[in-house]
Amino acid sequence: MKYQTLTPDEAAALIENGENIGLSGFTAAGVPKATTRAIAKKAEEEHAAGRPFKINLFTGASTSASTDGALAKANAVDQRTPYQSSPDLRKNINGGHTRYNDMHLSHTAQYMRYGALPRVKTAIIEAANITDDGEITLTTAGGNSPTYCKLADRIIIELNSYHPKELREMHDIYMPLDPPHREPLPLIAPDHRIGTHTLKVDPAKIVGIVHTNEPDGIGAFKDGDPVTDKIGENVVVFLEEELKKGKIPASFLPIQSGVGNIANAVLAALGRSQEIPPFKMYTEVIQDSVIDLMKQGRCIMVGGCSLTVSDGMLADMYKDLDFFKSRVILRPQELSNNPEIVRRLGLICINTAIEVDLFGQVNSTHFFGKQMMNGIGGSGDFARNGYLTIFTCPSIAKGGAISSIVPMVSHHDHTEHDVDIVVTEQGVADLRGKCPRDRAKEIIENCVHPDYRQLLLDYMALTPQGHTPHNLGKAFEMHNAFLGTGDMRNANFAPAE
Amino acid sequence: MKYQTLTPDEAAALIENGENIGLSGFTAAGVPKATTRAIAKKAEEEHAAGRPFKINLFTGASTSASTDGALAKANAVDQRTPYQSSPDLRKNINGGHTRYNDMHLSHTAQYMRYGALPRVKTAIIEAANITDDGEITLTTAGGNSPTYCKLADRIIIELNSYHPKELREMHDIYMPLDPPHREPLPLIAPDHRIGTHTLKVDPAKIVGIVHTNEPDGIGAFKDGDPVTDKIGENVVVFLEEELKKGKIPASFLPIQSGVGNIANAVLAALGRSQEIPPFKMYTEVIQDSVIDLMKQGRCIMVGGCSLTVSDGMLADMYKDLDFFKSRVILRPQELSNNPEIVRRLGLICINTAIEVDLFGQVNSTHFFGKQMMNGIGGSGDFARNGYLTIFTCPSIAKGGAISSIVPMVSHHDHTEHDVDIVVTEQGVADLRGKCPRDRAKEIIENCVHPDYRQLLLDYMALTPQGHTPHNLGKAFEMHNAFLGTGDMRNANFAPAE
Repeated sequence: MKYQTLTPDEAAALIENGENIGLSGFTAAGVPKATTRAIAKKAEEEHAAGRPFKINLFTGASTSASTDGALAKANAVDQRTPYQSSPDLRKNINGGHTRYNDMHLSHTAQYMRYGALPRVKTAIIEAANITDDGEITLTTAGGNSPTYCKLADRIIIELNSYHPKELREMHDIYMPLDPPHREPLPLIAPDHRIGTHTLKVDPAKIVGIVHTNEPDGIGAFKDGDPVTDKIGENVVVFLEEELKKGKIPASFLPIQSGVGNIANAVLAALGRSQEIPPFKMYTEVIQDSVIDLMKQGRCIMVGGCSLTVSDGMLADMYKDLDFFKSRVILRPQELSNNPEIVRRLGLICINTAIEVDLFGQVNSTHFFGKQMMNGIGGSGDFARNGYLTIFTCPSIAKGGAISSIVPMVSHHDHTEHDVDIVVTEQGVADLRGKCPRDRAKEIIENCVHPDYRQLLLDYMALTPQGHTPHNLGKAFEMHNAFLGTGDMRNANFAPAE
Repeated sequence: MKYQTLTPDEAAALIENGENIGLSGFTAAGVPKATTRAIAKKAEEEHAAGRPFKINLFTGASTSASTDGALAKANAVDQRTPYQSSPDLRKNINGGHTRYNDMHLSHTAQYMRYGALPRVKTAIIEAANITDDGEITLTTAGGNSPTYCKLADRIIIELNSYHPKELREMHDIYMPLDPPHREPLPLIAPDHRIGTHTLKVDPAKIVGIVHTNEPDGIGAFKDGDPVTDKIGENVVVFLEEELKKGKIPASFLPIQSGVGNIANAVLAALGRSQEIPPFKMYTEVIQDSVIDLMKQGRCIMVGGCSLTVSDGMLADMYKDLDFFKSRVILRPQELSNNPEIVRRLGLICINTAIEVDLFGQVNSTHFFGKQMMNGIGGSGDFARNGYLTIFTCPSIAKGGAISSIVPMVSHHDHTEHDVDIVVTEQGVADLRGKCPRDRAKEIIENCVHPDYRQLLLDYMALTPQGHTPHNLGKAFEMHNAFLGTGDMRNANFAPAE
């Protein structure tokens, strides 16, 4: 191989304070590991020597302990875009040490090409293979690698021998032209391939290869519980009814499913349905539960941005790569989350909310208006453009001290205009075509936990007039009751006597 | 002509209580007039006779005094979708007499075809011409007419001889297939035509023709004032700088511009710019100011959903139809506002906000969280998908008693994830890539009225920690100060002594 070999420390030595770095990967899948750990170590050394050292970090989505985790512990991240889920980084973001820009994941690449985001100087790309003429085989994610490689002055490759070179056949790499030259994305079905298997870069930009052999380190999700199982069942019963009514075509539509235990429970329930035919998925993150459905023949194929499966599951897949490489397509997030495609294919979009309010506004990101949890991720790319947009959440949290349904969400990520259906373990609220008062009635009757029904009816009664019957003096009374007393049930909306 | 002629009263007599009606048009342009007035009269007669009579009304957007106005005065509207701007209807919506579903204007047609909205039984379509085999020439708007005609059991035509039949050449009528059969929209430039000049319907559905001769009745907008002029100038100086920096391609990009006096001032300023080359527009509503720019050669062509020009301007255009019919394209709103096209063409999107908050969330619809003004309209279709999304507003209203920039907007229509640039007469805030604290700093320094700067800095100081430094106990303190005292400046964020 013609490229220079670098140790992780040698690679990290290239990185300067204030540098804009773009990483491959999406979730922990496909993210560089050794170089970022070495950058974190360098940051600690620089800080110990009394010198400032922070980088601006651009990724596909969240990363892993070796990246956001290590860099956050070293307080080595100034700007961070577009998504994270690291406990250590979250602490820095909420503490004001890291400036985090939470954005739609389909927007990042084009915004950087447009000049609306800082341009990355260095791209660090995990690869399963690299040829002398600059053809990179990405590992387990599409991410923003095509754009970061295009814009970067230099590229560091982490060549990870843990992954087979045959992964190339899973990838469908495509980057649209930018306005005014952009053309229609020619993708018209979830299993349609429109790009290339490898990412071609200018080999002159490749400054070196860091050799690794390390899995993504993804653990299995914990099993569902009665609440998530009931949410999954409620979603599926609703979809079965829509199918019966002819509101969903008889051949069904592709599924997009968010990440986490509720998403897993929904997928498991879809797997068990006798009414819903075998289906395709066009989604962002491919989790273990999707692979299980593929083994069962319930999910025919899946296109997504990342193969975020547990190390054990991935090892199994690699043993049966011929089966999976014809049924799994990995795409850059600009394509997996693209509004044009989401609307064209007519996705059934199922995502998780932190909070939903009486009028169908959704909070996906913040606790009590202030503390960032993870970020909006791709939920907005899908929710806005889906054929049917479903948000799920348990009706209560913290043993009932928090209601997930509140008068007004404390942070707005998805507006009433983008939310069709709300599902909790209590039931299903269909908000489509309804005015705010009718939406509130539907949500209180079907989704709210019994402990909170009267309280929310009391809130509605405060304001007999107005299109959206909010009372700005009391809209956060439940939140403030929790902050003050530790229990939202202590809120009081009864009129003064 | 083979169709039956109906008087407006005969047409109205066909309409039953509770019926779902779809209208042609978008804004006052192209909306039926005589039949809707007659339906309002029928409603009054029915109510006088002690019988219930309300219809469910589906339109393109807002309508006119002959439609929403007359029907609202007769309290004849139960459900109303997707947009309105009628003072009388607004009263009914806020009073709880009309159930209004405020939605993205590109969504209505497909949602009705999907079965997510009630299906219209009757379509009432204003036409400049109709042939015996059912080819309709629409008048001054594309609207949702293709879908309403497709789904309706019966069609009433208002044949309005005020409009020349040659209007057919302005229209580009296209309806996408629905999932799973939808294909890429083949439109790749604002002046590209992909559809037909006329709307072909089954002639057997046409139950009669109501003959009219009546203009749309649109008055000229009032002239700009120093505040709107300064906003326009600020937008244009910003765009000129972006162009110089190469962040906008040298050939410029198509403009989308909202409706109203600020939009007119922005367009006028674009017209005066020496730096910005002649440009194309891909927009929703085509106002007088666009036609002025076309006459000056500053706007080369415009594609939109409606020709919402004053009666005098339209009369002028009809005298010079050869010039305009090659430069104006009218499209259904499913196409004019389509996310796929908006993102592909890379529109510069300029829309007006009612309120903006420190973190870039935008309220386009409500006063004080409760009272509906008009609706979100197409602003979300454009804002989410534009190359560059700009929201404009004056920094203050009501002589300074209201600040348009507040700690938290009282209703959320566009989230922080969809807002790039905020412009007031004070200046320009560039929010792109910034974290919430940096956005707040940028907005306070550049957009907030001097009367409110310290107050908003005081709000920020309440919460030193947290990604988004909100204080849920005080987030609406300025709104509540106005509600309580008539002036937001009476809010107090100083820490207790």
